Amino acid sequence: MDAVSDHRSGCPINLTVEILGDKWSLLILRDMMFGNRRHFRDLLTHSQEGIASNILADRLKRLVEQGMLTKADDPTHKQKAIYSLTERSIELVPVFAQIGAWGSKWLPVSEELSIRAILLEQGGPKMWEQFMRELRRSHLGEHVYADPGEVPVWMQLKAAYEEVVARRGRSGA
Amino acid sequence: MDAVSDHRSGCPINLTVEILGDKWSLLILRDMMFGNRRHFRDLLTHSQEGIASNILADRLKRLVEQGMLTKADDPTHKQKAIYSLTERSIELVPVFAQIGAWGSKWLPVSEELSIRAILLEQGGPKMWEQFMRELRRSHLGEHVYADPGEVPVWMQLKAAYEEVVARRGRSGA
Repeated sequence: MDAVSDHRSGCPINLTVEILGDKWSLLILRDMMFGNRRHFRDLLTHSQEGIASNILADRLKRLVEQGMLTKADDPTHKQKAIYSLTERSIELVPVFAQIGAWGSKWLPVSEELSIRAILLEQGGPKMWEQFMRELRRSHLGEHVYADPGEVPVWMQLKAAYEEVVARRGRSGA
Repeated sequence: MDAVSDHRSGCPINLTVEILGDKWSLLILRDMMFGNRRHFRDLLTHSQEGIASNILADRLKRLVEQGMLTKADDPTHKQKAIYSLTERSIELVPVFAQIGAWGSKWLPVSEELSIRAILLEQGGPKMWEQFMRELRRSHLGEHVYADPGEVPVWMQLKAAYEEVVARRGRSGA
């Protein structure tokens, strides 16, 4: 059943929540976008929230039907499918950035899981644009110009996350 | 049951979707924010998506418990409660603006229900700030400075919406 064809008003907020209001769909997109998970098993075993295998399979199927993901054979792995973000899901970066900023301010987040959201908020629209260009390169195969001097956003986010994890490890937290 | 205390990770996106992933909660906040609905009956009868009375009552209670709304006796109406946005829900304006912009671009929205989202996107962060100031005035009773020359955002949104409705009426659509 396609959630989009099931809507009851043409309001953009209502239609969006029909797709993203499903918690698991949103978290799968988050893990693909910020954690670079592109295979079923990666998404399953690295899920912070412990997604069940049957739910993951169902939501991936639905996201492909909704045009949020594409699925293809991975030439580098036999018998493995690789999932890619589409232009429409890549353009959710500003939505995720705003949600992450709001959640980090108002909800009881953990330091290690909010550091990337805080960084992305501080970076603002310019950083979001750069991150979307990186996602277009790796998910859509686009040959987008990259400034040789700029540090990739995914690298900045990863470094900040690992620094918090290491610091907490050292302090025994 | 408090959705916040029930979460399984401290990720800001996950915690936010535990609150806003419920379609009806999000739509109630939307109607309070953009439609200036503050009474139970207003929210019920003007709901574009036809919310049921028991669901509305349940979600309003939950939003109050989550600190997203406050409830008080309305001094201007006997036996009526008035609901107000809180600072934390007012700060969702940028989230709604980004969701509205994304939905308007990618989903089969109707013109009359997306015109406000498009206007808000074009206005950018400056317009969102102004709109939040207006909401703080009317919902939090704050005496916030308003530039005498500026047209209130709620008035700009309302005018744009009514213009589309009138035009469609004239063309017999």
